[in-house]
Amino acid sequence: MAFQYLTNIPLEQAKNDYLAALTEQGFAAETETIPAGSSCGRMTAVPVYAVICAPHYPASAMDGIALQASVTFGAGETTPVTLTTDQFQVVDTGDPIPDDCDAVVMIEDVIYQEDGTVRLYAPAAPWQHIRQIGEDICAGEMILPSGMEISPAAIGAMIAGGVMEVEVLKKPVVGIIPTGDEIVPPTSDPAPGDILEFNSSIFSAMLTRWDAVPKVYPIVKDVREDIKNTLAQALSECDIVLLNAGSSAGREDFSAEVIRELGEVLYHGIAIKPGKPAILGYQGKKPVLGVPGYPVSGIIVLEELLKPLLDAWYRLAGGHVETVTATLSRNVVSGLKYQEYVRVRMGQVGDRIMATPLNRGSGVVSSFMKADGLLTIPQGVEGYEAGQPVEVKLLRPREELSRTLVMIGSHDPLLDEVCDLLHASDPTLFMSSTHVGSMGGIMAVRRGETHAAGIHLLNETDGTYNTAYLKRYFPQGGVRLVECVGRTQGLMITPGNPKNIQGIADLTQPGLRYVNRQKGSGTRILIDYLCRKEGIDTAGIYGYDREEFTHTSVAAQIASGTADAGMGIYSAAKLYDLDFVPVCMEQYDLLIPDTVWDTEVVQRLIGVLKSDAFRARIEALGGYEVKAPGTVREHL
Amino acid sequence: MAFQYLTNIPLEQAKNDYLAALTEQGFAAETETIPAGSSCGRMTAVPVYAVICAPHYPASAMDGIALQASVTFGAGETTPVTLTTDQFQVVDTGDPIPDDCDAVVMIEDVIYQEDGTVRLYAPAAPWQHIRQIGEDICAGEMILPSGMEISPAAIGAMIAGGVMEVEVLKKPVVGIIPTGDEIVPPTSDPAPGDILEFNSSIFSAMLTRWDAVPKVYPIVKDVREDIKNTLAQALSECDIVLLNAGSSAGREDFSAEVIRELGEVLYHGIAIKPGKPAILGYQGKKPVLGVPGYPVSGIIVLEELLKPLLDAWYRLAGGHVETVTATLSRNVVSGLKYQEYVRVRMGQVGDRIMATPLNRGSGVVSSFMKADGLLTIPQGVEGYEAGQPVEVKLLRPREELSRTLVMIGSHDPLLDEVCDLLHASDPTLFMSSTHVGSMGGIMAVRRGETHAAGIHLLNETDGTYNTAYLKRYFPQGGVRLVECVGRTQGLMITPGNPKNIQGIADLTQPGLRYVNRQKGSGTRILIDYLCRKEGIDTAGIYGYDREEFTHTSVAAQIASGTADAGMGIYSAAKLYDLDFVPVCMEQYDLLIPDTVWDTEVVQRLIGVLKSDAFRARIEALGGYEVKAPGTVREHL
Repeated sequence: MAFQYLTNIPLEQAKNDYLAALTEQGFAAETETIPAGSSCGRMTAVPVYAVICAPHYPASAMDGIALQASVTFGAGETTPVTLTTDQFQVVDTGDPIPDDCDAVVMIEDVIYQEDGTVRLYAPAAPWQHIRQIGEDICAGEMILPSGMEISPAAIGAMIAGGVMEVEVLKKPVVGIIPTGDEIVPPTSDPAPGDILEFNSSIFSAMLTRWDAVPKVYPIVKDVREDIKNTLAQALSECDIVLLNAGSSAGREDFSAEVIRELGEVLYHGIAIKPGKPAILGYQGKKPVLGVPGYPVSGIIVLEELLKPLLDAWYRLAGGHVETVTATLSRNVVSGLKYQEYVRVRMGQVGDRIMATPLNRGSGVVSSFMKADGLLTIPQGVEGYEAGQPVEVKLLRPREELSRTLVMIGSHDPLLDEVCDLLHASDPTLFMSSTHVGSMGGIMAVRRGETHAAGIHLLNETDGTYNTAYLKRYFPQGGVRLVECVGRTQGLMITPGNPKNIQGIADLTQPGLRYVNRQKGSGTRILIDYLCRKEGIDTAGIYGYDREEFTHTSVAAQIASGTADAGMGIYSAAKLYDLDFVPVCMEQYDLLIPDTVWDTEVVQRLIGVLKSDAFRARIEALGGYEVKAPGTVREHL
Repeated sequence: MAFQYLTNIPLEQAKNDYLAALTEQGFAAETETIPAGSSCGRMTAVPVYAVICAPHYPASAMDGIALQASVTFGAGETTPVTLTTDQFQVVDTGDPIPDDCDAVVMIEDVIYQEDGTVRLYAPAAPWQHIRQIGEDICAGEMILPSGMEISPAAIGAMIAGGVMEVEVLKKPVVGIIPTGDEIVPPTSDPAPGDILEFNSSIFSAMLTRWDAVPKVYPIVKDVREDIKNTLAQALSECDIVLLNAGSSAGREDFSAEVIRELGEVLYHGIAIKPGKPAILGYQGKKPVLGVPGYPVSGIIVLEELLKPLLDAWYRLAGGHVETVTATLSRNVVSGLKYQEYVRVRMGQVGDRIMATPLNRGSGVVSSFMKADGLLTIPQGVEGYEAGQPVEVKLLRPREELSRTLVMIGSHDPLLDEVCDLLHASDPTLFMSSTHVGSMGGIMAVRRGETHAAGIHLLNETDGTYNTAYLKRYFPQGGVRLVECVGRTQGLMITPGNPKNIQGIADLTQPGLRYVNRQKGSGTRILIDYLCRKEGIDTAGIYGYDREEFTHTSVAAQIASGTADAGMGIYSAAKLYDLDFVPVCMEQYDLLIPDTVWDTEVVQRLIGVLKSDAFRARIEALGGYEVKAPGTVREHL
């Protein structure tokens, strides 16, 4: 059978049914007894009662002398009482109170006489400066109820109360089995077709954060018996097992069959995207989760289906989810059949928090790294429109959003360096950049979605850069054009230039594979203009409709041999050791609206642009002309 | 010299000067290179750039066939294109795209013919369903800037980008040296005068939470050379050293002298309370902090003086402090000389968050465990008045406060059991109880500070319990009296009853040591009444002014031999195996205002009282009479 159809169970139903089935089977936390001193962050399994009192003896609360209060009665400013050496005893803080004493006088109030006697000018109240037995904790008192996380102070209270060991919920051991013929251990030199096995590293990190213990098994090839044997082994060694990859309906997907052979499959196919091919299985009380191979799908499945199991293990109600209302910067379309998760970048520009959808590919793990939030589009909803307010689950602290410089516009590798310098200059500041091309940047500024936009737009009539577009798109003014750098545009070419490309005119030669930038990018506008000027029909350039979003990704295609040439900046060609035919020098500037000019993030950006550190980084990249970055070229 | 005076440097100045001095000496994070796969939560030391592209080859994004898009041009519903087996190649998701192909058609759209050829009813767009090289990450791209915490997804991105190792900030190793002749390792059977060494366990837990590595040295006696040698060893092995105890001005406090011999002391004595005797020293670039011996002082000193050093190490701006505005339930008086830290219990009753100061003793470690917040009274401020709104630093999540049942009133060990049962019934619910006696409970209800108050108040005229007080203190009504339990009050007596105590009248015998409860407690009101009734002058009872706040702490004094008798309930006597002379049976009920009756926490409390589990716990405690707990006895 080429492929099989999966079920499409709504997430809530799947979760509830799964937990109910597992609970029925006896899925529950085991407990273990560990030393109290190393129990921080663990969860008590039973109430903890004090065994001894703290203090466990009446102790002096001060440095001073212990005595019977009654011998001091009547002492006053003019009627001091003198005590002989047998009437008091010197005590330090923490010393036991002698049996016949019931008060302590502070050393500061004791006047020593030559003969060793002491004089007091005030009476002592009975029980003063004595820490009574059990002042802190009484034996038999409940120190902690069950189901409580143990804090550092609770460790102190337990030990003070004579509790040396504590019964806590065991951390569940979660086995991770990576499977697949094409999966290889992480390497920086993989062969084509090799897929690096990094899911188990991501999952392990997530599990550790969730107080579970990951146990990663070696990669298993797509051989049914091998998968079955490894799963059987993991089930004998772990409390929960994740069978990674092989859960979709492709040619070699044995996961569901193997789980069914060793246990039960409750559902195969959940109405979420990404994550649909998840398998909810179990053997006895042990859950076996079939996790899709794509990393983004895997992360979602762990969040939505594994985390509730861990919460049940720890008898938690599930973590508090912090959400924020954000404004969508683009339309987001979703299928009616699934609950869809969209990773979004967020930034606060003025009063509004903007949310920009990131690449929705399931394989794009960097999108999860870059994401500030997760937008959930429920099953049955077709999507949301740009400008619409949406509830977004926060993936980083709310306050960081208001301290993030948002850059939406044209791509340049120097933005990475600006990001690093900005954060280094003040670790509470962050930068989030999205590459949508120069025209996209102008539109984002107009909509008030960004603090700054990198642009490099040629005015064809006079050969100037950027200023003409300002007047056209901001007739009311309200923006500044801040000088950044001059940079060399040209053709990036396979090293050695085997196809002997000398200029734009050579791009139409038969067999040559070009790779282009997306429409609206300054570089696309440049190549369109150059072709028009030289009378070249772009329909004759193979690959002219193959669009990449950054200079580096164009360079990467050429470096890998899947394209022969592409337009881009010198620094990108240099990064990939490509040949380069310079075409022109262009001005790359930053467009900044007046409304955010005086904000801390923007002023810090200007400071970075003007710094020597920025100049040094730019020189290391190569191909740039640096004059006076950070100065305002134009203020409309 | 009996004692020496310390300096009294304001905290901010001390912190800033210390950090400046250390920075001058070269205090800064070291870096280390670790596997990317186990770097979760660590902080990047330098920017991380991708080494390879991800994907590193053009990959199929679908299960289907790869082909040249041009061969499908013209295909339509009525004009299918047939491809021979040499014109396409079957690919699974993730497979490399063959060199001469530029598109993938999904398996669902492919119609296989008997002869192995396939038929397509729609044209393929070039580059469709192909994951281009670098779609996720391009080689040379910055994956993470420096100074960023590594997330699980970032681990995936690094490995996908060919980064197998990452340079991170080393975790600082912090040496902890416990000192003192009276300090002994944790034990549940200490001798009088022994002080259990649990500070290093508390500090270790705090350090681990702050991403430092604790290294605890064996306890050192108060011998100057031993302390000096251990400090020298710790300085050679650690990045930071904490010298615990011996930092005040007592008889055997060598800390400051020893630090001065091995390095420098910047300040000895900071204007904070608790924590005043802290020592801010260093040897070269390594901080040596003299930490006071009392656990509460130690926690404050670590929070206020060590944490800023760790933040500097990690180049952090310092954690975001979440505060909340709360209403003080009592006056808090503070000295003008210090910045004082007061641990408070908090609870939301109605709209207001109430803050009740906890025991301010520096030795009372349980107060830090019970604290929900920390109130700071600045230097130069004399304190705050009850009813005044104050800013309190939260020590647990804000949302937990609104899910906490607040109980202020009379003490009974059964409250611990209620707390455990309540949390077990719903892990999102908590209970916070404060023991201020029955009259204190009535006042707390009147002021709207508590959800419920335990009371047992005898009406002397008719021998009834509680109801008479309701009418007296709530003439307007608005409260319910909820039945809880009957309990046996009596005299708790040294086991074996060596002083032959048969009743109240025996308490005046010479040499007998009584221990009392605080004024306003129901038990105190009872003993006062009984003495009056029997014509006993309480001035003739030794220890009648020695006041404890709970039944268990009275029992603890008798069990330890520092008192011979005290009034209390049977369950407390049983807990400590004391002899017991029953005096009367009394009614312990809960007073609950109507305003909170319908809240989730109160209704859950009623549910617990009515449960079989509660009945079982009460029976295990002993000495109670359980009829219909949870029913409303009286509604005014």
